[in-house]
Amino acid sequence: MTTNRLEAFSDGVLAIIITIMVLELKVPHGEKLKDLLEATGVGLLTYVLSFVYIGIYWNNHHHMFQLSKRITGGVLWANLHLLFWLSLYPFTAAWMDESDLARTPTVVYGVNLLGAALAYYGLQLLMMRQREGGQQLRDAVGRDLKGKASPVLYVVGIALAFLDPLFALVPFIAVAVIWLVPDRRIEHYLQREGAEA
Amino acid sequence: MTTNRLEAFSDGVLAIIITIMVLELKVPHGEKLKDLLEATGVGLLTYVLSFVYIGIYWNNHHHMFQLSKRITGGVLWANLHLLFWLSLYPFTAAWMDESDLARTPTVVYGVNLLGAALAYYGLQLLMMRQREGGQQLRDAVGRDLKGKASPVLYVVGIALAFLDPLFALVPFIAVAVIWLVPDRRIEHYLQREGAEA
Amino acid sequence: MTTNRLEAFSDGVLAIIITIMVLELKVPHGEKLKDLLEATGVGLLTYVLSFVYIGIYWNNHHHMFQLSKRITGGVLWANLHLLFWLSLYPFTAAWMDESDLARTPTVVYGVNLLGAALAYYGLQLLMMRQREGGQQLRDAVGRDLKGKASPVLYVVGIALAFLDPLFALVPFIAVAVIWLVPDRRIEHYLQREGAEA
Amino acid sequence: MTTNRLEAFSDGVLAIIITIMVLELKVPHGEKLKDLLEATGVGLLTYVLSFVYIGIYWNNHHHMFQLSKRITGGVLWANLHLLFWLSLYPFTAAWMDESDLARTPTVVYGVNLLGAALAYYGLQLLMMRQREGGQQLRDAVGRDLKGKASPVLYVVGIALAFLDPLFALVPFIAVAVIWLVPDRRIEHYLQREGAEA
Repeated sequence: MTTNRLEAFSDGVLAIIITIMVLELKVPHGEKLKDLLEATGVGLLTYVLSFVYIGIYWNNHHHMFQLSKRITGGVLWANLHLLFWLSLYPFTAAWMDESDLARTPTVVYGVNLLGAALAYYGLQLLMMRQREGGQQLRDAVGRDLKGKASPVLYVVGIALAFLDPLFALVPFIAVAVIWLVPDRRIEHYLQREGAEA
Repeated sequence: MTTNRLEAFSDGVLAIIITIMVLELKVPHGEKLKDLLEATGVGLLTYVLSFVYIGIYWNNHHHMFQLSKRITGGVLWANLHLLFWLSLYPFTAAWMDESDLARTPTVVYGVNLLGAALAYYGLQLLMMRQREGGQQLRDAVGRDLKGKASPVLYVVGIALAFLDPLFALVPFIAVAVIWLVPDRRIEHYLQREGAEA
Repeated sequence: MTTNRLEAFSDGVLAIIITIMVLELKVPHGEKLKDLLEATGVGLLTYVLSFVYIGIYWNNHHHMFQLSKRITGGVLWANLHLLFWLSLYPFTAAWMDESDLARTPTVVYGVNLLGAALAYYGLQLLMMRQREGGQQLRDAVGRDLKGKASPVLYVVGIALAFLDPLFALVPFIAVAVIWLVPDRRIEHYLQREGAEA
Repeated sequence: MTTNRLEAFSDGVLAIIITIMVLELKVPHGEKLKDLLEATGVGLLTYVLSFVYIGIYWNNHHHMFQLSKRITGGVLWANLHLLFWLSLYPFTAAWMDESDLARTPTVVYGVNLLGAALAYYGLQLLMMRQREGGQQLRDAVGRDLKGKASPVLYVVGIALAFLDPLFALVPFIAVAVIWLVPDRRIEHYLQREGAEA
């Protein structure tokens, strides 16, 4: 099975998730700047954060599937599993915002982030085991420090939320920051291969 | 007519259906875990269920159209007919959730599932009759036990809803489970053909 | 400029329009079948109608752009002009539904349908004037009876709405019906050409 | 990295933004034409305006990426940065509409327009610096009068909003108008190149 339609479908879902989050931003009732801040609460912050997360997943997804032309049925489902967790971002982010960063909603948001990270990890494992492109992906990903650090940071954030939900934002934002440094591993791998060939 | 744009359009519609269902999940007003359960009701369960259904349809649709490069005008409309039934999932699922699994909404949800299954069956029949790829699809689908069992299970679910709507969920979930075992028929067919060629 | 991205963008917009209309269907508050009918009012009828309209436009759009590989900047804007009118369907249909087919909303819906038909006609004229594929499109479209009848029928519907909005639905539905008979002109043209070549 | 998926993803996001804005249009409660005008307020005007803006960005984006087959990781993020600003259009436009063109919301809308224009400018700078296609883009864009005038006009609009928000609409609309004249620079460049080759 070719990857084209899987990529197109994933692009569609990610494009919609990243865009409908704006529908969860409450339009302020007043017309002052403070009404905007009151209405959106932490909403603008988590909007930016979720936008960056989805952007990162799209980016990494894009890189990973470049190395493989054909995929198995298992990869299709692992990909849908990832999209499932990502599709919940607008919902859990909205709850966290509307509760003004209460403890339980922040923990639930963290669990959602963690679920997506583990789903991505599982998808990557499956892709690495494929005969076609698997070895290249293993070479390109290498020790995968970022991929391993992300779930750990999410767990730390969830734990910190029990102290104070505000603290949880620190590791959550940290994950976004470490990935925003563009992931040049696969690009480097492709360039090296190109140079050798 | 080539299948590219039909696939792209169907991918778009399916990606949107699978994603906007999250907009029907009510954000809880309280900030406790029990508020989440109260607010979403059976919503989270039917969200997962509908997500899996759409994933299955996308998966099977993807396999079916791989065998055919060209399609007739009739297939275009049979495909739109399928998308029509699938587009109603967010609506009928939301009604069932908000009524907390009352009888009529559960029956209506079942009728929606049944309508989609029959529309898919009709689309498959048309595709099998095509000169190009029709024979391959017939070979690949074979006796199509799953395809025939699904509408039967939906009818059983609709009937059980008249006893107790909760019972209806059993055959509904059963359909998702039997399809989650990935459909390797077309993959197998392609591999066999590849081996023979 | 190649047509690929224009087709992809148009497919995306049409897929979203056809799918978000379901968000305008009001979920019933009660749990009886009569609650469903009360809540959706004429909503289900106009949902089906709008779904069919968008399907027809997608279908015809798809055929038209098959005949042309390259397009001018003017076509880009004529295409956006068409998408603009189509994007208003969910809004004008929702108003007509919520007013239970009052006169003004029905007229506005008709004007929306008419605007889209004229925009399509304008796009088709531009495409026919293109050096590449223009002649083929003119040959394929021929006298374009359907294309000319549609705006006339919409005008008749708008006029009838002033008598009784219910009457307006007759020509509106008639347009959908005459197009549902699949438009084989371009298919025939391509087959004839294929046979001659 | 090839541009295909970046274009597909951007098309998806732009298609969704342009389409979900219709969900922010309030369906009138009454059934008269004046109810429509009251309910939508300046909403219909800003709907048209935002539709045209997104159309212009899609158009220019489309032209720009035609000149380049491969992109760097930096371009991916610059593109997401642009999509971020554009994704806020439905939100800031809705606030401006619901406040009936109050000062602060109009300024915020202007800042949003300005942010998108600067993000596009940054993306264009990055694309111009690329080894592949960079020189062609520089040649095609030339002095880029429109690209430089747009942010200036947005700043003028923001400043005028402090006098009267209605005045701000003049430069905002002016930007749309100067771009609606189709941007033939890249088309011309490609034609010239084609003629020379």
